[in-house]
Amino acid sequence: MSAIGVFDSGVGGLTVVRELIRQLPRETIIYFGDTARVPYGIKSRETIIRFSIENILFLLKQDVKLICVACNTVSSCALPVIKSHFRVPIVGVITPGVREAVYATRNKRVGVIGTKGTIKSGSYQSQIRQLDPQVKVTAAACPLFVPFVEEGWLSGGPVLEVARSYLKPLKDAGADTVILGCTHYPVLKPVIQKVLGAGVALIDSAKQVAIEVKKILAQEDLLGRGGPSRHKFYVSDNPEWFRELAARFLGKPVREVKKANV
Amino acid sequence: MSAIGVFDSGVGGLTVVRELIRQLPRETIIYFGDTARVPYGIKSRETIIRFSIENILFLLKQDVKLICVACNTVSSCALPVIKSHFRVPIVGVITPGVREAVYATRNKRVGVIGTKGTIKSGSYQSQIRQLDPQVKVTAAACPLFVPFVEEGWLSGGPVLEVARSYLKPLKDAGADTVILGCTHYPVLKPVIQKVLGAGVALIDSAKQVAIEVKKILAQEDLLGRGGPSRHKFYVSDNPEWFRELAARFLGKPVREVKKANV
Repeated sequence: MSAIGVFDSGVGGLTVVRELIRQLPRETIIYFGDTARVPYGIKSRETIIRFSIENILFLLKQDVKLICVACNTVSSCALPVIKSHFRVPIVGVITPGVREAVYATRNKRVGVIGTKGTIKSGSYQSQIRQLDPQVKVTAAACPLFVPFVEEGWLSGGPVLEVARSYLKPLKDAGADTVILGCTHYPVLKPVIQKVLGAGVALIDSAKQVAIEVKKILAQEDLLGRGGPSRHKFYVSDNPEWFRELAARFLGKPVREVKKANV
Repeated sequence: MSAIGVFDSGVGGLTVVRELIRQLPRETIIYFGDTARVPYGIKSRETIIRFSIENILFLLKQDVKLICVACNTVSSCALPVIKSHFRVPIVGVITPGVREAVYATRNKRVGVIGTKGTIKSGSYQSQIRQLDPQVKVTAAACPLFVPFVEEGWLSGGPVLEVARSYLKPLKDAGADTVILGCTHYPVLKPVIQKVLGAGVALIDSAKQVAIEVKKILAQEDLLGRGGPSRHKFYVSDNPEWFRELAARFLGKPVREVKKANV
């Protein structure tokens, strides 16, 4: 039985896996985290495309019917190129979040936060403007959020003060809707909500991605019919590190993580 | 004329280059930063050894007479293995710092801070005990220091509060001497000194490494005799990112950074 392939540069993509499992309980997930080469956020487009193609080739060998790019950096700077290379359906994390944000905003002011690579690529900004030219977009890179999440500093003074500094331009712009444009950020939702205020809608792309995946599987008549087999998790390095962090993103522990060479 | 080769996983090794230039003004430096695969701190020993060998082979092609491993992670977990493979003299950053710390301590309580990989390897701890079994060592991993430095958060609330949390075990142990066991940390010296107090000696391995390099070049009759040629800087990815950060570590801007494939 053919599975859904998911890849990310590391562990963050598990927030997408969590939603896929919730919304598509009959599907089997095969996850690949490129932990030998994490993080992608500071790498060049050329390098990110090369790594992504290698990751997809690995997943195709595991017999997958659809590939989910659970990484904002890859989705924002490499998706059209990698889509043009492969026949398997490939779903990124940008478009689903953009669609939901444009739908959700009342005052036509949307904020986007992500890694430096994602924000610099301008993907979110241009896709939002394409969908609704009246929306004013304010974008901010939050490079310390990923290390804070991975080190478990999820609340308290340091992360709160850094969040206040990063999110100030979004508050100043009066955004009523903010896209969490990095798969790590849902873990910091309480801090981000506290800084932005309860009235601001936070768009967690993971939920929208799972809806999109479901739609495509239905269209292509690829939905799983039996129950799921056991989900599989592969990494390119350091399975212990991945296993330790996994529960923070997936909401439950991962039993077995295998090392794979890409 | 043969140069001194220096490599690191990224940009941190430039704190060592700074000292080499200061203490050995007649030598030419060829630097390689493995920015396509940074950071090494969370990777496995096996992977770190493989990357290091590739980096050394690249430097040897540039005609170097000595190689300085300006990376604590590599020095602590891979040095004996890589030394056994090559004929060129290879200098790491652990031993010089250890020697100075054991010499400097008055109360025989030494602290060591570094990345998770460095601290977990136990290299500093065992080398200190070997040199003086009476010294009590307290070690602490400070994983957020590298992102703080790279993002330019060098002072203020967040870095100070995180530093207080990381350095508490060293204060509690009464260490009078602390080794900065990561090439990024000298940039945070003011914060670390503030938290530990003015009476604590901070050992910056870079200075000791340059002394060691000078000694070996003299012993092997390899000291440069003319003036230096222009220093060269290579990275495996993202020369712009490297150039932006370089001044923070080197104390002056780097004019030209070339991309190299390892």
